[in-house]
Formats: sequence, structure tokens, C-alpha cells
Amino acid sequence: MGLSIIPLGGVGEIGKNMMVFEYDNDIIVVDAGIAFPGDELKGIDLIIPDITYLTSNKEKVRGFFITHGHEDHIGALPYVLPDLNVPVYATKLTIGLIKKKLTEHGLLDKVTLIEIVPDDVIKAGIFEVEFFRINHSIPDGVGLAINTPEGLVVHSGDFKLDQTPIDNRVTEFHKLTKYGERGVLALICDSTGAENEGYTPSEKVVGESFEKEFDRAPGRIIVATFASNVHRIQQVIDAAISHDRKVAVVGRSMVNVVEAAMDLGYLTCPENVLIELNEISRYPSNKLVIITTGSQGEPMSALTRISNGSHRQISLEPEDTVIISATPIPGNAKLVYRTINNLFKSKAQVIYKDVAPVHVSGHASQEEIKILLNMVRPKFAMPFHGEFRHFVKFKKTATEIGIPEENIIISIIGKRNVFYKGNYKLQGKVPSGSIMIDGLGVGDVGNIVLRDRNILAENGVVVVTLTLDKNTGTVVAGPSILSRGFVYIRESDELLAKMYHELEEVVHNFEAQHIRDWTTIKKQITKALDSVIYSELKRKPIVLPIIQEVEL
Amino acid sequence: MGLSIIPLGGVGEIGKNMMVFEYDNDIIVVDAGIAFPGDELKGIDLIIPDITYLTSNKEKVRGFFITHGHEDHIGALPYVLPDLNVPVYATKLTIGLIKKKLTEHGLLDKVTLIEIVPDDVIKAGIFEVEFFRINHSIPDGVGLAINTPEGLVVHSGDFKLDQTPIDNRVTEFHKLTKYGERGVLALICDSTGAENEGYTPSEKVVGESFEKEFDRAPGRIIVATFASNVHRIQQVIDAAISHDRKVAVVGRSMVNVVEAAMDLGYLTCPENVLIELNEISRYPSNKLVIITTGSQGEPMSALTRISNGSHRQISLEPEDTVIISATPIPGNAKLVYRTINNLFKSKAQVIYKDVAPVHVSGHASQEEIKILLNMVRPKFAMPFHGEFRHFVKFKKTATEIGIPEENIIISIIGKRNVFYKGNYKLQGKVPSGSIMIDGLGVGDVGNIVLRDRNILAENGVVVVTLTLDKNTGTVVAGPSILSRGFVYIRESDELLAKMYHELEEVVHNFEAQHIRDWTTIKKQITKALDSVIYSELKRKPIVLPIIQEVEL
Repeated sequence: MGLSIIPLGGVGEIGKNMMVFEYDNDIIVVDAGIAFPGDELKGIDLIIPDITYLTSNKEKVRGFFITHGHEDHIGALPYVLPDLNVPVYATKLTIGLIKKKLTEHGLLDKVTLIEIVPDDVIKAGIFEVEFFRINHSIPDGVGLAINTPEGLVVHSGDFKLDQTPIDNRVTEFHKLTKYGERGVLALICDSTGAENEGYTPSEKVVGESFEKEFDRAPGRIIVATFASNVHRIQQVIDAAISHDRKVAVVGRSMVNVVEAAMDLGYLTCPENVLIELNEISRYPSNKLVIITTGSQGEPMSALTRISNGSHRQISLEPEDTVIISATPIPGNAKLVYRTINNLFKSKAQVIYKDVAPVHVSGHASQEEIKILLNMVRPKFAMPFHGEFRHFVKFKKTATEIGIPEENIIISIIGKRNVFYKGNYKLQGKVPSGSIMIDGLGVGDVGNIVLRDRNILAENGVVVVTLTLDKNTGTVVAGPSILSRGFVYIRESDELLAKMYHELEEVVHNFEAQHIRDWTTIKKQITKALDSVIYSELKRKPIVLPIIQEVEL
Repeated sequence: MGLSIIPLGGVGEIGKNMMVFEYDNDIIVVDAGIAFPGDELKGIDLIIPDITYLTSNKEKVRGFFITHGHEDHIGALPYVLPDLNVPVYATKLTIGLIKKKLTEHGLLDKVTLIEIVPDDVIKAGIFEVEFFRINHSIPDGVGLAINTPEGLVVHSGDFKLDQTPIDNRVTEFHKLTKYGERGVLALICDSTGAENEGYTPSEKVVGESFEKEFDRAPGRIIVATFASNVHRIQQVIDAAISHDRKVAVVGRSMVNVVEAAMDLGYLTCPENVLIELNEISRYPSNKLVIITTGSQGEPMSALTRISNGSHRQISLEPEDTVIISATPIPGNAKLVYRTINNLFKSKAQVIYKDVAPVHVSGHASQEEIKILLNMVRPKFAMPFHGEFRHFVKFKKTATEIGIPEENIIISIIGKRNVFYKGNYKLQGKVPSGSIMIDGLGVGDVGNIVLRDRNILAENGVVVVTLTLDKNTGTVVAGPSILSRGFVYIRESDELLAKMYHELEEVVHNFEAQHIRDWTTIKKQITKALDSVIYSELKRKPIVLPIIQEVEL
């Protein structure tokens, strides 16, 4: 009964990557993104939402509505569309990026992508979805106004309010105020920037910084940024043009996005400005700009390889200026600073966020959130992006403009938020969570494997092998010890001798007592080695006893 | 010939933990600290300097001069003093903290600790060492003025210039200007804050924030900070007193430091303010302050346990206010924000650096560095603390006040900087580097072990065991496959079948060809499994074949 809103995809408790709207026999899904694992999820490449709830309600699902083309909003499509072959609705650039992704997975022919413009209205089952342009760190983002039998729900998408956006497409305020006049049941609002007071600066600020840095750069200029930040790339190109420099693009994802954005008309560049990377040697250094990936210090990225001297085509020169036009995501700071240190060692000039305004956020600050709330005037408000601390700040911000505290819904992953006749209640939960992707494996790495990886990482593994006589149970080969990631065993004679000594005792003991049960023997081996290793080294490697049997 | 200055301890290239001064037959060492490992050094607890150069010149070493009591300046003493039993000179609080540390290692009776006051002059071989008070995030820090036959060298220690320090002990400017008048060959200068323009705020600013937050806190107040930041702790106690609250101290290192600082008179507190943790239930919430460790989100710390509900004595209440009075060190941001998110989930108020001025740095900003340079007026300047990017900014700052670029020495670990007759040159290098400590093991984990730990962390290990007939070389038991941290093998029947199929082929092959060489057999096993695993999963675990032989 009523309208259910369920955050379904994300890491931990925050459901930012996918959100489900359900009414009676109809479901629509907003976004289908991936999350990136933290250090504790070792070896995991990415995380997709658990869509059990959707696959078990397959016949209800009417479509995916994608707000913008960032990985955390489109990245899971190749994994979920094979199970849920419903139309995907998005704007032109977003569709372009989804197409690239589906092509890589060999899925392009198998799915239905429907390009929309923001003035379209899409009927999907009982729902009618309208769109409004917002500003964000990728072009062509939209928010959604979802007409439901319980009322209008506005979903902001990832947004900021940029009064001087690079593409001159200001947020469609007139639509927002009209929703407000029609009456809005709930606003689902990006809260990533809710800790920041005031307003997020316009993207234009970065262009002004570029102009200044380009003015004083004596040699080549290398700019690293997110591949998807097309407006940032446009501003690099614009600064290059105004300084009579050619532009080369480096890094697979950067080349991909620039191509797509040019093709679709989101990036404009005169004929003879872009050059191939292998042409750079033909131009003097002070006539060149190189745009590259690697702004997060990613180990295999172009900028990282440039910084540590392992890039095949670009070696740094002391006259180079490197601009890192991004801010480190928490967890990446060490990698980014390592790259910066390495760049400085090549005597290049390095310009980064700590020393110049070469980056602005794509997310609304507190005052922008207030503007959106005041335009839309929702009865209920629900933050949906960021971390829990941002939800709390969003709540504070929303109460400041008069939304009653009890009408601000801090919702976590899997919880079913039900709206019925203007009232709200939390009503149980649906299957939800993270599916981990490691290489080609989807969901085959679980908690036990991850726990072992964490122990292996810290302490390594010690393998003990032993061959027994099937008839007598006596040892006919071994025990032998082998280790990896533990100590450098060739230089640990004394420790090894002690470990073998312990093993001899164990063998003597089970042979003398005629113990034939492998589980018991293995336990004794593990216990003996755990104890000698801990008392000698205060370490706890995985001890792995392996027994084989032969018939003599 | 001449005076050598050699940075000897630190991580990577930056020698911040130990610095050697050598002239002819005399060596003095400034500081003996530890460094903390990055993620790539898995399982490593801490890093001490490689002191090969000192032990092989043992008869020359006249003493250690310790600038202040932080771990990165005193932490290596328990590891180096057994090999270099020379006097350790430091101020009262620093000696107190060193004593605690040496006691834990059972070394206190075996070493000579000499307490100095800043007006002392210590003769150590050819060197004469003077001291000057500076301000830092721990009390009783000093810088050094080292008289050498080549001239006076000033070492700033870790410093800031706080005009309103909590202990009223302002930096001893008169000494600095006198050094300037006497003529200074070189200033070795803390550059950690060299990216920051202007001045670092006074510690007093934090006290004012505490007053404000205490004013509005309805229930308990929990403050997390670095244990060694005694002045910060003093300000918490002062705010508690002015708000008529009792103070309990939580966390082993916090309890230790508070005890030492009280004993030595660096922390003042009226009789009845401090209470034991088990007494807190006797007081109403709004009469309590708890000071705790865990400001870096350390997994086992008191605050982390409080935040996730696993602390035995403190469970959070919605009326609690938690103040995190610290800034996350790069690499710790994710842990700190996880703690903050968890605290918010308990509905506590959380005050942290992003939302209120509850922390200031202990390191000088650009203008303070300029003041020091202008007072000391050195011929040469050498930054010694921070990262390479800070060295570069220090250089820029120093050139701004007129030090010629060629007189600013960016020195990296192990390099011998020689000063002779007023000239400088780089003259080779000495053995140097990081010794890694894992549990009780010192230096037994090297590059091979760390490489294996990184692979194990990402992909796990697959062990293949095989028992052969000693006479015929045929297989009498196995091959069997066991894995850890790879996939959950009980749910991977198909993969396992493929792996066994590959192994059968290998066995068939070497049996048929009468291959008896274990190295060849192991290579074939590894190759076969590497290939099937990579093609199935795009993963690369460590494949570990183990062969045993029996006489039938």
C-alpha cells in the first residue's frame, strides 16, 4: 500500500548508487552505479548493488532512469541489464557514455537505450517522469520529478547551482518552482556538500585559474583531471587556444570521453588544436598542453607513470607545469601526494588544490541546498548522496529553512520508506547489499575470503605438508614447511629450526597415540606453530596443514 | 674534511627522523624517531632508521640530542641505544617520555639520560650544543644551535611561533637574533607547514572553541586528541573546570602521558577534577568530560570502540557531544570519517575540523618560516621535515626573503652534505634506509616478503600438493588443491574441476616423459594453474606447488 522508496545500491549503509520507486505493480529504478572498495576489501575491483529484490520482481520493473554519466550512477548497468532487460532513459551524453560501456561488455545490441531531452515526460507504468537540468561536474545531468499516485517526488540527482556554467545551461529553476506550486511530497536531495557553508564556487573559477597559470608557464603544461569532467576539459582547451598552444590527450578513459564528447557536441574545439600524442615532439614546449588522467594518483594512470619516469612517450622537463585539477577523494590522499612529490623531484612546477584554486566541487553547499528546498517546498526531505555525516548536516540545513525534523528521512540501504496518504513510515527491508567484483568473478569473493586476504596481507601463510602411510598412520614424508609473505625463510634458520622441532613433537605424539583423525592432527599442527610463531615474533600468519596419504 | 650533515632516518627519501652531524672524529645525532608505514608495507608496524653508518663509526658517536618527545623523534631510541650506548640529552618532559619508552623495553637501567634546560651548553666532542625553546604541539620542545669548527648550525626542531602559548613560554627570540648576530652557517628548518600561507593560529584558538562547544553541550563531552598534545589536554581540563565538569581519561597512551605530564608539572589540575573511568556513573552526564585517544580513527583505539559500540565502559548517548580535536594525517582520512559516521549514527553531536576550529597545526606556516630565517640570517638553509612538496615550498619561501637559490639545500636521506670554509657540496652517500619492524622481528621482513604480502592481499594463495614415488617418479598421492583468500572454493566446483583437469594433464605429461626434476614439474604446475585461473577469473594468486617423495 502506498509508494515505496528504497535505496538499493551503495557501500555500507548509504544507498547512493541505485534507488527504487515502487507502487503496486510498477517499479522504476533511478541510477545503476558502482561503488569503489575501501582498503579492507582487498583485491576487489568494484562493488555493484545486490538486485535480488528487482530480479524477484522482474515483471514489475518498467525502466532505469539515469541522472548523469558518472560511474557511480551508470557503472552497474552492464551487470544488471542482462537480468533486467528494460529500457534505460537518459540524456544524450549520458546515453553516449552508457553505449561505450555496454559495447565493452558486448551488450549494446541486447538492450534498449532511450535518449530523452529534459522537456520529455516518460510514462513508465503508473509513474510519469519529468526531467530538469541541473549543474554538475559532468554535462547533461538531470534531476527527476516523478509523478506518483501519492504525490510528486523530486530527485535532485547529483547537483550544484552554477550561475555561470560553462555550457550556459543554468539549472532549470522555473521547473523547480512549478513543482513547488504543484506541491511536492518528497525531495530526495544530494547531500555530499552539506558540510560546506555558503555556495560552491562556479566552474568558471577554475577557468580563471587556468588562464593565470597558463600566463606564467614557461614550458609544457600538463593538466590532470577526471576524464568525465568535460567542462573542465573544455576550459583547458579554451586556455590552450587563448595561449596559442596545441592540445594532446593521454590516458585511455580521457581519450574515450573526449572522443564521445566531441562526437556528441559537448566539447568544442577548432580543427587544428587537438594533436596526437606522437606529434608532440614536433612542437616547442611552450606551444603544448597535455590533458591526462591520474588526478587521483591511480597507480597505473598516465600522470603517475609520467611522475615516476615510466611513461613511454612523456618524460618530464624542468620547465614543465603540471596542474592537478581535482581534489583527493578520502583514501587517495597518500597516492596523490606521492605523485606530487615525484613531480616536484623532476623540478617541474606543480599546481594543486592546496596551493591554487584549480578545482571546485560538483556538489551543492548548504545555501544551494536551501535554495532547492525553498523552491521545491517538499513535505518530506531525504538526503541520498555522501556519507552519514553529510546526512546529519543535511538534516540540520533542512530544519533551518523550516522542514520539521520528523519529516527529514535519513534512510539507509535496503530500507523500505513508505508514503501513504501524505504520511510516512519505515516498513521493513528488502534484500540488499554489495556484490563484489574481483576480475571476472561476480560475487564469488565473500567474507571468509576477504578475512583470509586481510590476514595474508598482514602476516602471510605458512604451509605444512605431511604424507602418511594409509595403513599405519605413520609419517612417510615431511613434515615440510613452506611460507609466503611471512619471513624470508632462508635467513631465519633459528626460527625454522624451532618450528620443525615443534612439528616433530606433534608427529611423535600422534604416531605414539595412534591418532588417525586428520582434523585432530591438523589442529595440533596449527596450534603448535601458532604458538611458537607468536612467542618468537608476535605474528599470526595463516597456518595451513595439508595431509596426504599413500598406500605402501 | 669539513662538517658533514647527513639525514639518516625516515621513509623513502625524506630524512626527518634522525640527522647526523660529523666533524673529523666526532659525531652527534639529532633525534632518533620512527616512521609509520604506508599501505604498501603490509603487516609492518613501524620503521626505524638504518644506523649501519653509526654502528660502523661507533667510537665517534658522542650523544643523541632529542628536540622533543614525539614518536617520530624518540621512537627509535629503544632500537638504537643497545648498539650505541651514548648519552641522550633532552629537556625534562622529553626525558620523561623517553623513560616510559625505555622502561617498556626493559632498557632504562642500561642507558644514560641527561636532562637539560634550554640555557645549558653541552660539549660533545668538538661540538658545543646550545638550546632554544620553540613552540610545538607538545610542550618542552627545543631547537639546537650547534657550534662547529665550520660555523654555527641552527636546527629548528619541529616548531611554530605561538605568540600566546598555553604555558606562556614564547619561542626564545633573543637567542635566535643573537645567533644571527654571531653568524649562522646553516639553518635546518621544519618545512611541514611550508604550503600554508600566513601564520599558523595559536593553540589558544582551540581553547576558545572548546569554551563555545562546552557552553552548548547538553550532556557528556568526549574529546579525542593526540595523547602527546599536553597543552590541548590542559585546555580541555581548563574548559571542564570553567564548566564545573569532572574529567576522566581513557586510552592507554592518554593515561600514560597525562600521568607523566602531571608528575613533571606540565599539566596542572586541581585535586578533585580528575576522576577514574569507573566513577563516571556517579556523575550526571552534564558534569562529565572524557578525554580519549583515537583522533586518527585507529581501529583499536578507545574512540573507535566507543563509536562502534564495542567499548566496555562507555556507550554513547544521544545527548553526548564528541569533539575530534585533530586533523586526519593523509592515509587516515577514511578511518577518521568512518568513526565520525558511526558517532553520528548514535545521534551524538560530532564536532570536527571540517565544521569548527577545534584543531590547529604545530608547524610553522610561510610567514613564521620567514621570521625564523630573518632572525637567524643563515648562509645556507635546509628544510628537514614534511614531504618533498614541502621542501619545494620552503625553497620558494626562503628565496623570497633573499636566500640565494643555490644556497638552499634539498637534501635526501643518506646524502652527505659537506660544509668547508663557507662552501657547500654534496659528497656521496652513506648506508641508510628503512628497517621494518613487524611484531618482534626487526628487519626480517624485506622486499620479497612484502611483494608476496601484496599479491596475497589482492589474490590469495593456491597450494598444490603432490607425493611422488621416489623410485619411479610417479604420483602416489595428490595432486590436491587448497586455497586461502582466493575464492570460496566450496562454491566454485566448475573452476576447481578445470584446475584439476589441468593438473591431470601436467601429471600425465611428466610421468609419460619421465621428468624427475622437481623444478620443472613445479614450473609446469604453476604455469598451468596461472593460465586457467587468469582466463577464468582474470586473477593472479600465488600458486605454490609442494612436492614430497616416499619410498614405496
